[in-house]
Amino acid sequence: MTQVFKIAIAGLGTVGGGVVKALAARGDELSRRAGRQLQIAAVSARNKHKLRDFHVSDWTDDPLSLATGRADMVVELIGGDEGIARQLVETALANKKHVVTANKALLAKHGLKLAELAEQNGVTLKFEAAAAGGIPIVKALREGLITYPVAAVKGILNGTCNYILTEMEATGRAFADVLKEAQAKGYAEADPTLDVGGGDTAHKLALLASLAFGTAPNLNAVAVEGIQHITPDDIAFASEFGYRIKLLGVARKLEGKIDQKVHPAMVKVRAALANVSGAANGVLIDAGDAGSFFFSGRGAGEAPTASAVVADIVEAASGGPSSVFGRPAKSLSRLEAADGKQAVSPWYLRFEVLDVPGVLASIAGSLAEAGVSIESMIQRGRAPGEPVAIVMITHETAQAAVERALKAIALSDKVRARPCMIPMES
Amino acid sequence: MTQVFKIAIAGLGTVGGGVVKALAARGDELSRRAGRQLQIAAVSARNKHKLRDFHVSDWTDDPLSLATGRADMVVELIGGDEGIARQLVETALANKKHVVTANKALLAKHGLKLAELAEQNGVTLKFEAAAAGGIPIVKALREGLITYPVAAVKGILNGTCNYILTEMEATGRAFADVLKEAQAKGYAEADPTLDVGGGDTAHKLALLASLAFGTAPNLNAVAVEGIQHITPDDIAFASEFGYRIKLLGVARKLEGKIDQKVHPAMVKVRAALANVSGAANGVLIDAGDAGSFFFSGRGAGEAPTASAVVADIVEAASGGPSSVFGRPAKSLSRLEAADGKQAVSPWYLRFEVLDVPGVLASIAGSLAEAGVSIESMIQRGRAPGEPVAIVMITHETAQAAVERALKAIALSDKVRARPCMIPMES
Repeated sequence: MTQVFKIAIAGLGTVGGGVVKALAARGDELSRRAGRQLQIAAVSARNKHKLRDFHVSDWTDDPLSLATGRADMVVELIGGDEGIARQLVETALANKKHVVTANKALLAKHGLKLAELAEQNGVTLKFEAAAAGGIPIVKALREGLITYPVAAVKGILNGTCNYILTEMEATGRAFADVLKEAQAKGYAEADPTLDVGGGDTAHKLALLASLAFGTAPNLNAVAVEGIQHITPDDIAFASEFGYRIKLLGVARKLEGKIDQKVHPAMVKVRAALANVSGAANGVLIDAGDAGSFFFSGRGAGEAPTASAVVADIVEAASGGPSSVFGRPAKSLSRLEAADGKQAVSPWYLRFEVLDVPGVLASIAGSLAEAGVSIESMIQRGRAPGEPVAIVMITHETAQAAVERALKAIALSDKVRARPCMIPMES
Repeated sequence: MTQVFKIAIAGLGTVGGGVVKALAARGDELSRRAGRQLQIAAVSARNKHKLRDFHVSDWTDDPLSLATGRADMVVELIGGDEGIARQLVETALANKKHVVTANKALLAKHGLKLAELAEQNGVTLKFEAAAAGGIPIVKALREGLITYPVAAVKGILNGTCNYILTEMEATGRAFADVLKEAQAKGYAEADPTLDVGGGDTAHKLALLASLAFGTAPNLNAVAVEGIQHITPDDIAFASEFGYRIKLLGVARKLEGKIDQKVHPAMVKVRAALANVSGAANGVLIDAGDAGSFFFSGRGAGEAPTASAVVADIVEAASGGPSSVFGRPAKSLSRLEAADGKQAVSPWYLRFEVLDVPGVLASIAGSLAEAGVSIESMIQRGRAPGEPVAIVMITHETAQAAVERALKAIALSDKVRARPCMIPMES
């Protein structure tokens, strides 16, 4: 084991710091596993002089120089789907350097091209940390659950959203309130759009779908809805029905094609996904004949993410062929997007209406016209003059039909605010 | 991909049949993943003429001939920790053939020697199917959760026991009753000892502990207790306290050594392990700094087990170095067994006593003498003349102290049957 494996790290934020510290603390053990002496040969970060709780030498100011230097591998922890991160990864692969990255946006957008580039150059591109942080779900899908065709992947993939929804349920507080607190505590970004809007979940889902279905990542085919419109009322009603609201990324086969969606969903309180609390992540794989498998754990933060990055480093250093998405890039098929509006489920519907005669009749009429039939209903009075919440659970209905009905209903001047519709997971 | 990878399969029971069928149904897809054309080159089974729902050619009556034939890999699905299975695996490795096996007993007993033999001959020995069936937990421990030292592994690893306990809870019926029914349905073996006595869980635990702690498997150091003595009363009392009884395999660091135990344990109803129902398996890994990770799914049966075996076949065929336990066999340390009796937890205690004055005082006295302090207690009357159940939950106490007290208490002629003690998981 005299052969040295030289690692260049670009980006020394939380995750990069965790990687440096883990390699320092457990270098011998990890080198034994890799069969090669792991060595950090170069690092680069925006601010060389920032106070850090670990020591590095071999600084460079130019991250791109790492891609052409003496390293065997570049660890890209800069982030972003274009710019310097993309340039670094492309140049490193073209220069026959292995790449490990946590960059979900980059891979969701350019995954196929990068996989082709890696294979052409005989190196690997690994991204365990890009989806569900410390949970080894990329490995499980790429190498483990491959024997039978996967039917569906459902995941809680964004810790910020799950933290906010968990807090809303525990305290009854409003979304905006909890978000503000999460920002103050550092659990949510100053600009939370990518998290609460569902975009981050979409990036991760596109990668998991690719691994699960043997398709090239297709981010554009993900229908995305965030959690900003979820109210304490929705969460309370969900609880009455025995459900909990979670932001799910769902990719599944639908009529021979693939349906990819990010949306809030009602999950039965006893279901595994409903019991993923706080900032944790959870993923349910319906692996066809092999049955369903569930994985949960910490999906973000220094150590969980560094755990995944370091595992990738060790694996790449230990050598051997390893295609980026579990099969040759040229055998990845184009993801044919299903018409997701045809997906069928029961729906939770909430209307805020004026307490005047005829409102319920009008709503019920519009639903009937669109072919939506109601399984149960709750109407709850409020203070006089205030709008009244009407909540319905439908029988199994296609999304398109529910949307048609809600569009008609929203036109009524007796209906305040946008009606809310949330699918109920089986 | 013109290079053929020849597979010999020994044993065509449920799992072997599943492997043959999966390779037939998805051979092209799996070959693409492997980068080589997977081909079943030879098979052997006890009864060539048994009616099977799949077709195979290239039969041999002598399984050992597979180890010296033209195959690149031998898949051992015969079972047993000695005899033909051991001979086959050893001969195959010595003849530089990769081996895939689901044989937990063989690996728990001879894992280190077999790993050394594989490495000396430059081939791999893979055993994903040997623990937790379809759950890719061997891979997760061997390659995924390697960055930080693992603190503990806790698993529900035997579907038969979990099925029986789940049924006992659901129906209130006695162990012997539910076992008999499980046997009639084919969920339990005619001789259920290895399952209900905890031995099968011990085999699997020894393998997971080895992967988690970098130690050679040490089956002899596993303290084993089964579920035969669990009564409907225990399950009902557990439920009153907010717990569920599960047979757990637990391996954890204790005073710098490793404590390995198989025993019924009280698990909080909200905990992930408590919600592993029926024949499913579940594993919780405390991966130190990276946090806790939970995995669950089907742990036995044709498709889940074949799923794991086929994944191993594909991985071995795709080449590359892969040490058996995640690091060179010579770097596996000897497992230093902790004194498990020093493990501390709250305990559930149940005594069946005669309803006469002074019994409680005598029990309380013995507990106090051993330094066991009581956190809560339930005493429940029965029909006149029948024994009375006294149930106590202790504060955190070492196992040794509780055992000392119970030994003294059992001497009393007012105490019927053996007192029951079950640790409560935090």
